[in-house]
Amino acid sequence: MEAVKAYELQLELQQVRELRKTLELKMKELDYAEGIITGAKSERKIYRSFSDLLVEITKEEAIEHIERTRLAYKREIERLRGKEREIMEKLSKLRV
Amino acid sequence: MEAVKAYELQLELQQVRELRKTLELKMKELDYAEGIITGAKSERKIYRSFSDLLVEITKEEAIEHIERTRLAYKREIERLRGKEREIMEKLSKLRV
Amino acid sequence: MEAVKAYELQLELQQVRELRKTLELKMKELDYAEGIITGAKSERKIYRSFSDLLVEITKEEAIEHIERTRLAYKREIERLRGKEREIMEKLSKLRV
Amino acid sequence: MEAVKAYELQLELQQVRELRKTLELKMKELDYAEGIITGAKSERKIYRSFSDLLVEITKEEAIEHIERTRLAYKREIERLRGKEREIMEKLSKLRV
Repeated sequence: MEAVKAYELQLELQQVRELRKTLELKMKELDYAEGIITGAKSERKIYRSFSDLLVEITKEEAIEHIERTRLAYKREIERLRGKEREIMEKLSKLRV
Repeated sequence: MEAVKAYELQLELQQVRELRKTLELKMKELDYAEGIITGAKSERKIYRSFSDLLVEITKEEAIEHIERTRLAYKREIERLRGKEREIMEKLSKLRV
Repeated sequence: MEAVKAYELQLELQQVRELRKTLELKMKELDYAEGIITGAKSERKIYRSFSDLLVEITKEEAIEHIERTRLAYKREIERLRGKEREIMEKLSKLRV
Repeated sequence: MEAVKAYELQLELQQVRELRKTLELKMKELDYAEGIITGAKSERKIYRSFSDLLVEITKEEAIEHIERTRLAYKREIERLRGKEREIMEKLSKLRV
């Protein structure tokens, strides 16, 4: 019974970690995009994707979008880290 | 036997829910795109993705596409909600 | 033993079917793109995606790409249909 | 016990292989993009995708990105090949 419980927790931990890493990667990509957009070179065209549509947006709209998304990602990553710690505690108790 | 059946139903319920949430998210994104496209700012270029190709479309084509897609999504989300109710009923009968 | 075998075949059948449906959907999207590209309206800009890059291509390049991809998809869909028939035969023998 | 171990190794091998094939496919796509970008035709516009944003980049930036990504992919593909060999050795020992 405990082995099954531990296995389920391991699986959950793995899923939470993958989700967190995906968000961290997306955040890194947005940081990189911000660097390019605000960099020295003259204006670049920017598009934002919405489902299967790409809509042209301005530099200002892009930066605002990045900042807002970054905040949302940070909160979510923090929440996932908390969940990881929680699961690991449960796992360590099972193993005692 | 009943535990296995309940487990399978739980799994199916989860899949149907994820599919519904994905559609709801896509619908939200299209709503957002529509807001930007029809908003105050002067014309924006728009592309629509088809597999690995992006083809420029007009504002009118984009709006028509959004409206049609929204209708299709709404119908599908309704259908999935019905399926969720169905599965939950089966589950509650198993537990009685 | 036979139940396990049947279950594995069912799973394989499902995966092959999903793959085929994904290809059919992509082919439909390319057909649609071709309709738009070759349609009445004046020239539209077209991009093709390669991993994380989008590169502008001409109308002629797009049509050539669609035709070649369509042929490749058709062959693959045919192959998958054959595999589906094969698996279903195996399943029907197991059930006899 | 050994059957379970072999099954887990098989699963891991499959996942590593799929990951490697995905990277090989992405590398091929970037090679193809490079061919188009550096080809005879006059300048093409290029965009790079970062999460849900597409940012216009120059031909030089695109080529630099492709070269750097190719190196990173090659290293990762090599690492995954090593892992595949490792898993296959473990499997062959189990079967002895």
